[in-house]
Amino acid sequence: MRRLIIGIMGPGEQASADLCAIAYDLGYHIATAGWVVLTGGRNTGVMDAACRGAKAANGLTLGILPGMDDTHLSPAVDLPIFTGMGHARNAINVLSSDVVVACGMGCGTASEVALALKNGKPVILVRSDSVSEAFFKQLAPGQVQVVTMPDEVVERIRAMDWHK
Amino acid sequence: MRRLIIGIMGPGEQASADLCAIAYDLGYHIATAGWVVLTGGRNTGVMDAACRGAKAANGLTLGILPGMDDTHLSPAVDLPIFTGMGHARNAINVLSSDVVVACGMGCGTASEVALALKNGKPVILVRSDSVSEAFFKQLAPGQVQVVTMPDEVVERIRAMDWHK
Amino acid sequence: MRRLIIGIMGPGEQASADLCAIAYDLGYHIATAGWVVLTGGRNTGVMDAACRGAKAANGLTLGILPGMDDTHLSPAVDLPIFTGMGHARNAINVLSSDVVVACGMGCGTASEVALALKNGKPVILVRSDSVSEAFFKQLAPGQVQVVTMPDEVVERIRAMDWHK
Amino acid sequence: MRRLIIGIMGPGEQASADLCAIAYDLGYHIATAGWVVLTGGRNTGVMDAACRGAKAANGLTLGILPGMDDTHLSPAVDLPIFTGMGHARNAINVLSSDVVVACGMGCGTASEVALALKNGKPVILVRSDSVSEAFFKQLAPGQVQVVTMPDEVVERIRAMDWHK
Repeated sequence: MRRLIIGIMGPGEQASADLCAIAYDLGYHIATAGWVVLTGGRNTGVMDAACRGAKAANGLTLGILPGMDDTHLSPAVDLPIFTGMGHARNAINVLSSDVVVACGMGCGTASEVALALKNGKPVILVRSDSVSEAFFKQLAPGQVQVVTMPDEVVERIRAMDWHK
Repeated sequence: MRRLIIGIMGPGEQASADLCAIAYDLGYHIATAGWVVLTGGRNTGVMDAACRGAKAANGLTLGILPGMDDTHLSPAVDLPIFTGMGHARNAINVLSSDVVVACGMGCGTASEVALALKNGKPVILVRSDSVSEAFFKQLAPGQVQVVTMPDEVVERIRAMDWHK
Repeated sequence: MRRLIIGIMGPGEQASADLCAIAYDLGYHIATAGWVVLTGGRNTGVMDAACRGAKAANGLTLGILPGMDDTHLSPAVDLPIFTGMGHARNAINVLSSDVVVACGMGCGTASEVALALKNGKPVILVRSDSVSEAFFKQLAPGQVQVVTMPDEVVERIRAMDWHK
Repeated sequence: MRRLIIGIMGPGEQASADLCAIAYDLGYHIATAGWVVLTGGRNTGVMDAACRGAKAANGLTLGILPGMDDTHLSPAVDLPIFTGMGHARNAINVLSSDVVVACGMGCGTASEVALALKNGKPVILVRSDSVSEAFFKQLAPGQVQVVTMPDEVVERIRAMDWHK
């Protein structure tokens, strides 16, 4: 079986330092588990922090960029995919992830979680607020998990059925 | 100034008969106001009903299809745009609409509302449940309006500042 | 049967005044025949001229824009579709056209003709150079026609089998 | 500097056994040089052969798929990116490649070479026919190289200016 690709989605410029610290830990734990980290690839917020965390654990990082060149590319992305498609690339982020992990919430992240649910992908919300949790659980009952700590994400992914 | 294009988004196969009746009225009222109706273009649910309503008022209808050909095209679409891009076309629906009207809620619709808010588009939720309303108002305070009746949508759009 | 949508593709900034004059006539003749004119929608070159010609004949014009807003929109486009996808929107231009007419040649136009042939669309080259003609006829024997005058395009489209 | 990503494009189902043998060697030589091999990712033709060659040299392979899941995925792709966008993904193939190598020619490949030239990417044609060579050299003088043997591709890429 090929390596799992875990998408870590979350705010860019709006991400707080606390949220970036959690994203860094998420990247670190997911890479330590041997999985590829996929993000939106820009050099800001959750995308950047998750990739840096993955690299600290010698992981492999994929970035699916909205732009056409490396102007806003995170230096922690090993393999950049330049789409030139702006937010329409959010659909690719989701289709290319075996699990979608949302770290924090914003308009772009909400579109990715919604598309992940539309495509039947498992979704894990990390440090979600109660309104977002209620909304996505109502949209797709049974398809959304909520955790508090980054290392729980790894346990939840391990517990999924990967042999079907 | 060119004609306004109003996007009407909502569930496809999952839409109830009641929701389709509201979507039909929405299409009728928007077309009567002289605006173009844009939908996802398929022959089902809110998309189809809104286009049929618009045609009953002699309106003009644009459909932005996920597929490559007219296999699932609503017969009430005057001008089909075939993207062949699946759900990634949701980004185009939103960018091409001057206002995004969500009639009902589902995973695809949620992705469109989230992308509309990301792109700074005004959003009107028709017959929204309270959880969805709370979620989107939290995501983008001041950018989301909620109405009950289709004709209120026209009033709300007229009241927006179109001369900036 | 719905109205035919005829795509007119050609160079933007690189188009000569002569080529723009031919594109204008193409738009005029196609609109006079009752068909919708679809272009890349920008305010330059063949796209702009074809839309202006169509409007001079009271035709309807669709523009599939690479950008996210009307910054570079041709004023002769009635219905702009904003993709925000850059050159990837070329695939949509082609899928949404019943016939692809190339007026002049350039890198973007070549990608559109190639994708049109890939998707089985009829292609008409207007004022093609001999190298381009040889290349596309070799790529898809029997699928490419070459004409000199804009009004011949209308005859060729009329002669196609639209009842299958 | 990050690892170079070299795109290898060419026919799928229409590729001859000879062409696939060349594509395999191309993948092998490019991976041996330490570069990442990017293809359209399907389990057929040049895409599949180039990835198999790269894996034989312990290389890393990226596939940018037209589909939404691994139904037609080459088993020699390490990291699949699922776009769900059909041929529109050709634009992503090109934007994500530092050099585009065309091995053989067909409608899809022609669209990729044209988009590569549009985006200013260096293009190398391997075993090109004279008509294709004349066409692309006319489209973008000075931007297209033509070689006969797979190992020449590596020399040509090494000779490019990667320090600007």
